Amino acid sequence: MPTLEFWYDFASPYSWMAAERIDGLAAAAGLAVRWRPFIIGPILRLRPDNPSPLQNAPPAQRAYRRRDVERLCARYGLPLRWPTSYPRNGLLGARLARAASPDIRPALSRAIYRANFVDDREISDATVIRDVVAAQGLDADALLAAALTDANKRGLVADVDAAIAHGIFGAPSFLIGPELFWGNDRLELAIAWAQQPWL
Amino acid sequence: MPTLEFWYDFASPYSWMAAERIDGLAAAAGLAVRWRPFIIGPILRLRPDNPSPLQNAPPAQRAYRRRDVERLCARYGLPLRWPTSYPRNGLLGARLARAASPDIRPALSRAIYRANFVDDREISDATVIRDVVAAQGLDADALLAAALTDANKRGLVADVDAAIAHGIFGAPSFLIGPELFWGNDRLELAIAWAQQPWL
Repeated sequence: MPTLEFWYDFASPYSWMAAERIDGLAAAAGLAVRWRPFIIGPILRLRPDNPSPLQNAPPAQRAYRRRDVERLCARYGLPLRWPTSYPRNGLLGARLARAASPDIRPALSRAIYRANFVDDREISDATVIRDVVAAQGLDADALLAAALTDANKRGLVADVDAAIAHGIFGAPSFLIGPELFWGNDRLELAIAWAQQPWL
Repeated sequence: MPTLEFWYDFASPYSWMAAERIDGLAAAAGLAVRWRPFIIGPILRLRPDNPSPLQNAPPAQRAYRRRDVERLCARYGLPLRWPTSYPRNGLLGARLARAASPDIRPALSRAIYRANFVDDREISDATVIRDVVAAQGLDADALLAAALTDANKRGLVADVDAAIAHGIFGAPSFLIGPELFWGNDRLELAIAWAQQPWL
């Protein structure tokens, strides 16, 4: 069975929904998940029509997106509190999640998401991130130091380049080998594809 | 039980998928569907970042969209043949579907979609549309004449204005009273909402 690659950005509420759902769905399907934190901002900025939530989208679509996120979170049982600052910069979170070992990365990533989308905390602030890491029972100083090494920073830049090479243009994205799926609403489809491609 | 309003554009492959699925899903849920043909072009052109499939979207996203449509159609059992001209202008189809009585509108609309997305026919051509209508056993001359009256043309313009007033910015869209859902991938959610809102 192939691995399900999960590319996620801490600024993205749809990435949060996927982060809360993917382990259960993948386990039920007998699939391994590889968590790939990244940042979508540099990719969106390459576009002539930057579709960032705070730029260019017309008021009707922005209002819709907010309602859609609220409806879906309620449906999934996720206690969303809309961040007073949105979107928050996910760079520090991505560096930290990348520096964490794969066995602790999923729970740590969900904790960062909940700091942002449930507790309305400023996840680009190192003090906040330190609290979140410590609350997971992890060595916050060591993990923050690992997150901020040049090697880890450069590694994240290389990951963004790899995302572009895979054709990724939004978050969350899922990869089954070369097959790309975009959006929390394609997670079930990606898992079905991993089990048995139909095309 | 409220009515499910279905807003669709004949240029849109995701609208086609919804048109093929909505009657079965709504019937199973005990819901009535009101089919509302419209054209999304005038709404997209109001945007600074016109997201029309042929304008502005970067190559990675255009390639993804095509693959996504192919995967979904195969999954739904729809025999997609990608139109050699895409997107085709859906204006004549919308005028015609609007002029048709509500009892024949769903089947006629699906026939127009299949002309475009299965038989690769130019649905903006009145000769093609006449064939499609006649193949449904309908009076093609009478329906085309009704489609092209000033009253029907003005009615469609008013429908587009109504769509904007409802906050519609893409196709397909679904309305349960004032509650808006966008995209074929929100059809099941819209039906669940019609049965019991959860927020």
